[in-house]
This record gives sequence, structure tokens and C-alpha cells, in this order.
Amino acid sequence: MNISKEKVLEALSTVEDPDLKKDLVTLGMIQGLEIISDQKISFKVVLTTPACPLKELIRINCEEAIKKAFGGKVEADILMTSNVTTVRNDAPLLPNVKNIIAIASGKGGVGKSTCSSNLAVALAKLGAKVGLIDADISGPSVPTMFNVEGEQPAIKQVNGKNIIVPIEQYGVKLMSIGFLTPAEDAVVWRGPMASSALKQFIGDVEWGELDYLLIDLPPGTSDIHLTMVQTLPVTGAVIVTTPQKVALADATKALTMFKQPQINVPILGVVENMAYFTPDELPDNKYYIFGQGGGRKLSEKYDVTYLGEIPLVQGIRESGDSGYPAVLKEGVMAKAFSDFAEGVARQVAIRNAASSKTEVVQVKV
Amino acid sequence: MNISKEKVLEALSTVEDPDLKKDLVTLGMIQGLEIISDQKISFKVVLTTPACPLKELIRINCEEAIKKAFGGKVEADILMTSNVTTVRNDAPLLPNVKNIIAIASGKGGVGKSTCSSNLAVALAKLGAKVGLIDADISGPSVPTMFNVEGEQPAIKQVNGKNIIVPIEQYGVKLMSIGFLTPAEDAVVWRGPMASSALKQFIGDVEWGELDYLLIDLPPGTSDIHLTMVQTLPVTGAVIVTTPQKVALADATKALTMFKQPQINVPILGVVENMAYFTPDELPDNKYYIFGQGGGRKLSEKYDVTYLGEIPLVQGIRESGDSGYPAVLKEGVMAKAFSDFAEGVARQVAIRNAASSKTEVVQVKV
Repeated sequence: MNISKEKVLEALSTVEDPDLKKDLVTLGMIQGLEIISDQKISFKVVLTTPACPLKELIRINCEEAIKKAFGGKVEADILMTSNVTTVRNDAPLLPNVKNIIAIASGKGGVGKSTCSSNLAVALAKLGAKVGLIDADISGPSVPTMFNVEGEQPAIKQVNGKNIIVPIEQYGVKLMSIGFLTPAEDAVVWRGPMASSALKQFIGDVEWGELDYLLIDLPPGTSDIHLTMVQTLPVTGAVIVTTPQKVALADATKALTMFKQPQINVPILGVVENMAYFTPDELPDNKYYIFGQGGGRKLSEKYDVTYLGEIPLVQGIRESGDSGYPAVLKEGVMAKAFSDFAEGVARQVAIRNAASSKTEVVQVKV
Repeated sequence: MNISKEKVLEALSTVEDPDLKKDLVTLGMIQGLEIISDQKISFKVVLTTPACPLKELIRINCEEAIKKAFGGKVEADILMTSNVTTVRNDAPLLPNVKNIIAIASGKGGVGKSTCSSNLAVALAKLGAKVGLIDADISGPSVPTMFNVEGEQPAIKQVNGKNIIVPIEQYGVKLMSIGFLTPAEDAVVWRGPMASSALKQFIGDVEWGELDYLLIDLPPGTSDIHLTMVQTLPVTGAVIVTTPQKVALADATKALTMFKQPQINVPILGVVENMAYFTPDELPDNKYYIFGQGGGRKLSEKYDVTYLGEIPLVQGIRESGDSGYPAVLKEGVMAKAFSDFAEGVARQVAIRNAASSKTEVVQVKV
């Protein structure tokens, strides 16, 4: 059989990326195509994220396109790989960081740090290069959640400037005020000092090359949030809420803050944490302790993606306290957080394909 | 029988206030003593708070002291009343407010606003004059919790100055940024603006005479907290925590902030919220979803009063969302919050008897 690269590409140009709504060839996702023999070809499909939930579907669709074009007589050796997309190519600050994702909630205590930690670990586990900034200066949780309390980052000199080497755990690079101050001391700083700590975490840390840098924001909509958007163009924001009315009210405020025309950070989606409680003895009972369906309603109201719900099980809290994120274990929780991570990575890819880069906020708000 | 005021007072000077460790006569708590006949006397016992949990015990002790002194032939008509104590007599700001109580947590989402709201309503229900400032500028919950969303306070002119009339609900005077801004809009202010809002809530609101002005603080240890201690001498602080390690870590920070020598606000105690969950179908099962005993351990470590635990029942959240505080209903929750309120009022009385007034923080921290 006569196989040419052109014919293979023609066949593969019938396969669409369901999220990006374009064919794989146009998207440049087919790479390294080789005609090995008249019965065997090989190529790579370069996805936009290692966390792509559609990976298997796309692989099958490629196989079927080849089969359809060459009548089942050609075997295709397909390597599914990824290269995380970015719109930050010429960024002056952190040029080697492809995507910056803010995790916000408005209200505290809704599990923002739990979601951020598990998101970071899930993305790293799937093969992405991930960093996590704990931007909660007065209540850092990341050192506990990653079981690195009391660790102190190394400092090194680069071009005469002191650079902090982030702590690395479970494949994630971490920075938190908790690494710089004793655990029991209160960091009682007015806004400008907290803001300059965040600026240091962004500019004076050796982040290197990253696919995703997550910023776990403090509750509220104040100094740290303004400093972030004035310092860095944020790729997108994830809103964490719980189902209570008071939490939804604050999540709405966080959401509208990012949507303000002068801030204009794309919303990647809303995740609902502590959606329900399930006791071991009554596995079929879902107790909607905090109410039901609020996160979904919020996402519908503001026309943003609903990233799913995370149940409240004792294991999550114990994971947080013991410093071993739930996503690293087996079971329902790991599944919930993996799905959440895939959802976020997918929305980042869609956002990068569809919209131009985020601008740093210039106006003083 | 020959009864004189002296003899009655001599008898009553054997009765001690168990908290203040002095007798009622020395404490000036016996007032309006009248000898009506040689078989009947009447007097008032003026307690230090209407929420005194020892009210019944003290009344019985008075009756027994009279019985012992006069052999059961004299009937005593005892009116148990109260006059909340204060050490703020000559305060330049809010001179008619007897006690200012800060409610803090470090971590958000632990139920600070739920505890503050129920504390305020419980104290008012017992007869105290109570005000509540919602100092969470970016995430106000008080309007929802008191079912006064969308209400707007009246403004009146006093000596050419605009004064805000607080919203009153369930016997509590309320002030919140939520009364001044639309519910869905984010209040994206840097610290100095948030601080000036708090200063307005303190200085430009017609609080009138209050026994207790509660300040529901935002999460963290930042601008609002510093502004509060630099503006007002705070009678004492209540620390709210949940049992998780990450919440306890932040509660510790809040506690050590108030204990810093240059801030020096007395800690009235620690209350543990969401201590356990109890489903209706399994009333004997206590699910320690967030861990067990953390609040008590925290109070022991820092040698402060443990103010008890509040369980997590669906009713509390529903009460918060529906704007009808749980303490106004019957049942286990109302009991838990009433006990908490009595504990706080008791600690305020003990603190006022034992320590001198709190100083406004002068140093710029």
C-alpha cells in the first residue's frame, strides 16, 4: 500500500479536538510523523496538557481515522504526549512560567488550600511542572498540607541578588510565609508588607520552568488580590465555594472582582467543596450539611464552567492535617480531585486557544 | 425578732460570688435593702451580667444565709438583677459602651460570624444591650445571618456631623459594610480604606448605651485587627476555632497576636465550633469530621478559658442562611450557644474585676 505523509495528515485532519473545536493537524498537535513501512506508521499527538481528560478519546479517534483511510492494513504507533500551551511568551516577569492560576474563594475556610494543594499534586502526578505560592500571609496552610513544616528554603546568589530556592514536595515547588516565620507567631502586617511578601514570592524565587504556577489566595478581596493582578498577568482564576448562602455570597464577590473591566482575569470555573458528608456506616447517605447545588447555580448565573463537586469525608481533613494530600491515595477523593485537576487544565487550554493574554492591571484600584 | 440592715448585711457578707471570689456586700452587689417588717425583708442582688450562669446558685445562697442568721422566721424577697461592669468609664471614644469584645479566629470559615451572631442574640435575649460590628469588609455575613439584607441605615445629623443609625434586629444593633454596598459587588479595597470603614463603624454610628459591643473580625491578622486595637481599648477577645490542625494553627496566631506585649488584649477564652456532626438518623453518633479536642488543647496550652464546643448540625447552617439565629429556637443548638454566651459574659465580669482597663495601642506595629 502506498502511504505518504500527506495522506496520513489528510486522514488525521478529520479528527477534532473536542474542546478546541479544530482538527489536530491545524492545531499543530500531530508531530514526528514517520512512515516506517507500508504497514506501519508512527506519530505523536501533542496535547495541550498532560491532564487532558480526552486523551483516550482522541487516541481512539486517530486510530479510527487511519483505519478508515487505509482500510485497517496500516498499524499506527501513537505516542500521546503534551506540551502545555501558554499566552505568556514575552512576559517580563516569570517568562518561563506558562500559566498562572489564581485560586480564590472570597470566604475563608471553604477548602481553598485543600483544593489548591490537591490540584497542584494532581497536575504534577500527571506529568506537569507545577509550582504553588501560598499567598495567605497571615494564615499559611501549605507547609502543614505538604508535611514540610519547619523546613527552610535555601538562599542562593544569582547576579548578586538573593534568590530563594523553593521547597519541593510530591513533585511540586512550594513557597509560603510559613517557611520564613515560626509556626506559632502571628504575622501582623498591614497590607503593604503582605503585598511585598507576595511580590518577593513571585520575583525572588527560583521557579524555573513551570507549566502551571498556582497562587492560593487569602480570603477576601483586598491588598494581596490587587497586588497579584497588578504584578502578574493571571491566566485565569478558579473560584472555590461551599454550598452555604454566606459562602456563595463571598464567592460571588470574588468572581465579580476578577470580572471587573479594569481587572479582567478570565474565570476558569467554579468548584464546590464540602458538597456533602458521607459517614462510613451509611455510605449511601449524602448529608447536604451546608446545602445543595449552590456552586452549580453560581456557575450558571455567571455563565462560567462548573468544575464539579468535592465531597466532605473525614479522609480529606486528615490528609490535610497529616500532610499527605488525598489525591495521592486511592478512592473516591483521589478521583474527585483528579477530575477537578483535569477540568482546570482543560479550561486553561481552552482559554489559551480562545483568548489573548491577560494584561497586568495598570490602574490603581 | 429584731432585724436591722446591719445584721442582714452581716449575714449576706458570708455569701461569695464564686467567680469574683469576694462576698456580695464587699462587691456592692446588695442594693435597695429594705426591712419591711420583722418577718420580711427585700433587697436586690445586682449581678455583673444578665447572662450570669450562677444566678440561681447565688439566690439560693442568699436565702440560706438569711435563714441561718434569723432562724427561718424571716422571709427575704430577693430581686436578681444586673448591671454589667465596665473598666471603660472615662473612654474618649464610645464612653457609653461598657465592654468591647473582639471575636477572632485567624482562619476563615470556622463559624466566627455564626458564633458572633448567636452570642449577640443570646446576650440580648437575656436582657443585655448589645451591638455588633461586622468588621469583615470584603466578606460581610451579618446582613444574611440577621435577615436584614438590602436594608439601608438611616443617616441623621448630630452637631453638623452625619451619624449612621444602626439597623436593629432580634434586639441587637447592627452595622456592616453589607448595608452600604450592593450584595454582589466586591469591595476591593486596600487596607487603609477597609480600616477607615471600621473607624466609621466605631465613631460615626449611633451606638448609644451598650453593655456589650461585639466586633466580628475578618480572618487573618492584618489591617483591620491593627486598626481596631489602635482605635479602641478592647475589653477582651474570644477565639473561635474548629478542630483541624490548620484551623488551630491560625487560631494560635490570632491568640498570640492579642497577647503580644504591645497589643495586650486579654483573651476571654477559646470556643470550638463544628466540634462534631450528628445525623438525625444516628443521634448517638458523633462524627468528629474535623478532629477531636483541639480547642481544649489550645486553651490549655495558652492557659486561657475553654468556652466549650458547638456541634455541627444542619440546623445551624440553615439558621444562618435563613437569617434566624439558632439560639432563638429550642433545642441542643440554642443550649450550646446560650452556654457559650454565659461563659463569655462571665469571663468579661471576671476580667473587669481582676484587671485594669485595656490601653489603646500607641505604637505603630
